[in-house]
Amino acid sequence: MSKVKSKEQPVILVTNDDGVTAPGIKALVEAVKHLGKVVVVAPDKPQSGMGHAITIGHPLRMHAVHYFEGIEAYQCSGTPVDCVKLAVDKVLHRKPDICLSGINHGANHSINVIYSGTMSAALEASIESIPSIGFSLLDYSIEADFTGARKYAGILVEHLLKRKYDKHLCLNVNIPAVDASLLKGLKVCHQAYAKYEEKFDERIDPHGKKYYWLTGDFVNFDKGKDTDVWALKNNYVSVVPVQFDLTHYKLKAKLEQTLTKLN
Amino acid sequence: MSKVKSKEQPVILVTNDDGVTAPGIKALVEAVKHLGKVVVVAPDKPQSGMGHAITIGHPLRMHAVHYFEGIEAYQCSGTPVDCVKLAVDKVLHRKPDICLSGINHGANHSINVIYSGTMSAALEASIESIPSIGFSLLDYSIEADFTGARKYAGILVEHLLKRKYDKHLCLNVNIPAVDASLLKGLKVCHQAYAKYEEKFDERIDPHGKKYYWLTGDFVNFDKGKDTDVWALKNNYVSVVPVQFDLTHYKLKAKLEQTLTKLN
Repeated sequence: MSKVKSKEQPVILVTNDDGVTAPGIKALVEAVKHLGKVVVVAPDKPQSGMGHAITIGHPLRMHAVHYFEGIEAYQCSGTPVDCVKLAVDKVLHRKPDICLSGINHGANHSINVIYSGTMSAALEASIESIPSIGFSLLDYSIEADFTGARKYAGILVEHLLKRKYDKHLCLNVNIPAVDASLLKGLKVCHQAYAKYEEKFDERIDPHGKKYYWLTGDFVNFDKGKDTDVWALKNNYVSVVPVQFDLTHYKLKAKLEQTLTKLN
Repeated sequence: MSKVKSKEQPVILVTNDDGVTAPGIKALVEAVKHLGKVVVVAPDKPQSGMGHAITIGHPLRMHAVHYFEGIEAYQCSGTPVDCVKLAVDKVLHRKPDICLSGINHGANHSINVIYSGTMSAALEASIESIPSIGFSLLDYSIEADFTGARKYAGILVEHLLKRKYDKHLCLNVNIPAVDASLLKGLKVCHQAYAKYEEKFDERIDPHGKKYYWLTGDFVNFDKGKDTDVWALKNNYVSVVPVQFDLTHYKLKAKLEQTLTKLN
């Protein structure tokens, strides 16, 4: 029995939001493939900013792809969240031991966790009782250097596969875009209240009609040292544990006192 | 001065995810139009399940529409979250006093808050320091009876315009699909751990290729009486205050003790 057991590798589901051909997902697969049986199910096109969107109104397609040497992989026509759901039901036919999302080309710290397809895939796994990590490198370039990100992905995944925390564990990990030698290590943080102040760029099309591009400036309203934004500015790898219970418990107590009077 | 002040009506931004022509948004406008200056900016097509998606890769369109008698209204080609952002920057040119989303045709209790375009629009407003409420009726029908929902929308919006709670206040309000006379009143709750257990319906298209429809059964894992699912089953209008700080603070403390040892 022990022999059989020692052969059972953990199953590692890998997805992302930049699409299955993005260099970041290849870097993530490379970082963890020695730690278990890796299976990739990722979007067939970029899905940045898709948040926790799911596909309801039309069906999904999924095809095997051969982008990763020796790794079972599929591209899916849906969102990152769709990929996780479809992987569990139709590819793995079981829950994986861990779900990894990324490595995203670009930051997902602070409020961006809510808009991010990368983090929504990880959160979806967590809802499904699958521990998960989303990884994001603070470099949007297609030619980004994933050396430091790969190193910390390997360290964290190895640790989480050995030590069970919580079946709903979900980590939002961001890595500064600096040379790996300059990284100061992991720092557990909370999500900063920092966000984009949106401005739409209004333009006129060749037919004389208006259209709008979403743009904005990033503003940090949170001056604490315990935030992901501070950690990243100071060359730490930020680790924010994330949850899907959005209840605002402090306000709940207050509202209980007042709203019930309206009945 | 006091005369001028008394003329200043609160500005009420209304959006939804079922699209600008859905009966639910008309019911919401009717419920609150006596309470301030209502402006509608809503999607030009159904956007259910879009979660917190935003439109990055292509521009947005927005056009004035005349669906609501005497009310300034626009349809937008983007997601519910896009609608809120665009309304603030390009329609109102200021923050509204409150943002309302819905009334959704269908439930958004428990984990559905995360997938819901209705609630993501409300949460977006909350991120932007605009108090907000998302309303959902537990009836998917286009011919749903919004009488009870309208009543409680009126009560809650009037209350929140008078009494300031928090600039980030965001309420997830669900209304049971029963005759208004049977509703027992408002109940402040927390989000139940109840979710769909997904099963994909695998089919073969006329060209012999597989495709998948997302389906599932709703399962309540949370047996407490303090949840939105319990309240709704017992004919209460459930009110869950929602927040956008996803940090899991309990796990954060635990992880601080262990992860830093990996450095």
